[in-house]
Amino acid sequence: MVETVFARQWDRLMELSRLGAIPGDGVNRACLTELDAQARRLVIGWARDCGAEASVDAAGNLFLRRAGSDPDAAPVLTGSHLDSQPQGGRFDGAYGVVAGIEVLAALHDAGVVTRRSVEVVAWTNEEGGRFQPGCTGSMAWSGFRAANTWDDVRDGDGVRYGDALAALLDSEADLPRRALGGRAHAYIEAHIEQGPLLEAERLDVGVVTGIQGSRWFRVTVNGASAHAGTAPLSLRRDALQDAIRAISALNVAMADPDDVLRFTVGRMVVSPNSSNSVAGQVVFTIDLRHPDRDVLIARGDAVGGIIQGALLQCAAEIVETFHALPAAFDPAVVDCVERAASSCGLGHRRMPSGAFHDAQFVGSVAPAGMIFVPCRDGISHNPAEYSSAEQLGAGTRVLAAAVVELAEVG
Amino acid sequence: MVETVFARQWDRLMELSRLGAIPGDGVNRACLTELDAQARRLVIGWARDCGAEASVDAAGNLFLRRAGSDPDAAPVLTGSHLDSQPQGGRFDGAYGVVAGIEVLAALHDAGVVTRRSVEVVAWTNEEGGRFQPGCTGSMAWSGFRAANTWDDVRDGDGVRYGDALAALLDSEADLPRRALGGRAHAYIEAHIEQGPLLEAERLDVGVVTGIQGSRWFRVTVNGASAHAGTAPLSLRRDALQDAIRAISALNVAMADPDDVLRFTVGRMVVSPNSSNSVAGQVVFTIDLRHPDRDVLIARGDAVGGIIQGALLQCAAEIVETFHALPAAFDPAVVDCVERAASSCGLGHRRMPSGAFHDAQFVGSVAPAGMIFVPCRDGISHNPAEYSSAEQLGAGTRVLAAAVVELAEVG
Repeated sequence: MVETVFARQWDRLMELSRLGAIPGDGVNRACLTELDAQARRLVIGWARDCGAEASVDAAGNLFLRRAGSDPDAAPVLTGSHLDSQPQGGRFDGAYGVVAGIEVLAALHDAGVVTRRSVEVVAWTNEEGGRFQPGCTGSMAWSGFRAANTWDDVRDGDGVRYGDALAALLDSEADLPRRALGGRAHAYIEAHIEQGPLLEAERLDVGVVTGIQGSRWFRVTVNGASAHAGTAPLSLRRDALQDAIRAISALNVAMADPDDVLRFTVGRMVVSPNSSNSVAGQVVFTIDLRHPDRDVLIARGDAVGGIIQGALLQCAAEIVETFHALPAAFDPAVVDCVERAASSCGLGHRRMPSGAFHDAQFVGSVAPAGMIFVPCRDGISHNPAEYSSAEQLGAGTRVLAAAVVELAEVG
Repeated sequence: MVETVFARQWDRLMELSRLGAIPGDGVNRACLTELDAQARRLVIGWARDCGAEASVDAAGNLFLRRAGSDPDAAPVLTGSHLDSQPQGGRFDGAYGVVAGIEVLAALHDAGVVTRRSVEVVAWTNEEGGRFQPGCTGSMAWSGFRAANTWDDVRDGDGVRYGDALAALLDSEADLPRRALGGRAHAYIEAHIEQGPLLEAERLDVGVVTGIQGSRWFRVTVNGASAHAGTAPLSLRRDALQDAIRAISALNVAMADPDDVLRFTVGRMVVSPNSSNSVAGQVVFTIDLRHPDRDVLIARGDAVGGIIQGALLQCAAEIVETFHALPAAFDPAVVDCVERAASSCGLGHRRMPSGAFHDAQFVGSVAPAGMIFVPCRDGISHNPAEYSSAEQLGAGTRVLAAAVVELAEVG
């Protein structure tokens, strides 16, 4: 693959980033929106230009298939997602899809026929920014949950996931519908690291060995609103103060001297949210991650009791909204990625993924692996997210080499 | 005043409460909205039915004047406000305006001519729920601030206060425009207590001696958003965690064994507010109140240093958005209210106001006082806010007696 290909990949990423562009080079492209549909159409066009065929499954996952010589052989899958965080960047997800298209284009331009078909996939709703949880497309594909599991989940405007998905599928009624799931010989996902390691070690590529586990919770603290000027503090049922007590107690309980555990309260909604009214209700989220299965289970199982024990004035309802245990990738795929990085002459290391990805769920039913490229200052889920055209191109070279090996040429 | 008058007052309060009705008997009628304008038209109609004339000043304050026999004598003012909290009740503010109209009606029905004119006033934006701070109408009227002070304050949708006020005034171009400010012989405001005292002591009326002081602050904590799965906790600049540290430190510093001080964080807005992103910015409010001037000044002046000292990862910007020192009402007006309560044979006590009211600002330029009636469980700023028709009627009897004495009959 040559420099011009890297330039085209960059240009395509920039073209995608205009769909939902926000100040500071960011992207806000929520899943199952008109912007998401536009991004999918763009990618479908690029795939067709190199002879691939588009199809979609009942979960909204988009497949772009370049047929191999052996129709009975399980395909090699690669891809990622096209949705973004509300204040997201240009590369998270989009890179993996565009890199996959570049692999198809390289095979097409070279006139190579692989034995196995190669399919680029854009999974539905990886981010969970609009509808919680994320990774619903890959969870449904892998059979981790039924495809209708999230139908009644609503976004901030009250729109049902099931309705938004049906509307997207209606708008893509011109595409062949494929069955949900199916065999895959392997799945490889290229992605920006979203952490600081590769940049710090001046390496080109991360050979990802697995993904830490995640447990998400939604906590609703119910108190009673009251007048800020008259209600004595001793008689209040202040939901914000009890939420603070709960989070402070969790901070202590989740402390990790090794700084491996990730504990985040990223979302908090206060009602009535008026400066001179005591908060009657607070809803906040917990995002807990750890690579060790036992630690994740133990700390996650403790969350409810810690919160209940910390409340002084209010009652809390705690719901676990997402639960994914740590995943180890398939050794053969990890080895294949490592060989590909070596054969390209690129600096690389094995590493776990701090973020979760669709590969976590796909990996439960098919041999899976991932390729990381560095991103500046480890910043992601932020408009400032950045990887250079060269860094992204290096990852795509490794992806192409791995896909070619797995799809078997000649 | 007879039972039928109390029933009419109740019916009018219910009619007003339909403008902005929310579930649970609540009202959401923000100032300078179409609903606010409709409420003003309703009240103007009732006032005209008893021979009063409507006019409006540059701050949007609405006056309903029943002329006295001596055009040179300073008028007696009574009233309150028609705007509500976002999750407000049916009586806060509306009661004082409707009670004033009932006094005008009683004078009209009895054919009484007072020497001084009696004016019922509905002050603009008492609550501060849409545009902060509150009491802008009475502050402008009393010269506490210039009328254009808040023109550039924006509501949650970005609408400027100045533009919303101009639109309201345009819609009331049919009303005579009166000069801002002016003399007043006295001002009496009837209001629900918004606290538990009168109900607990089974009293009919509170003779209000003054209002505790208030200081409001807006705190902006600026950190950096990051990926919840990858960013090590030691490297985060988590605005929510630093906001929690700041509020926890304030809780300690504002502790009051006597439970007289009121410290409230009622509003918090998190950005980007995504469950799997570290919070990059948190804006929260502080509402601090105390009846002792020295305590209010000392504790309020300490707020900034306490916050700055509590932050570990972020920077904070602290702005004082409102500052009103404790106010003592005019002894002659307080005595007059007390006499009126006694003459009506109602149980009463002297008491300070925990909430602030327009009377605080009006009282800086005219002799002022207030009349409280009980409200159930002391609940206010909440849809469950409730006082009975009889409780409200008793307060109106006292108001009428006091106004009659101050306006001088015969």
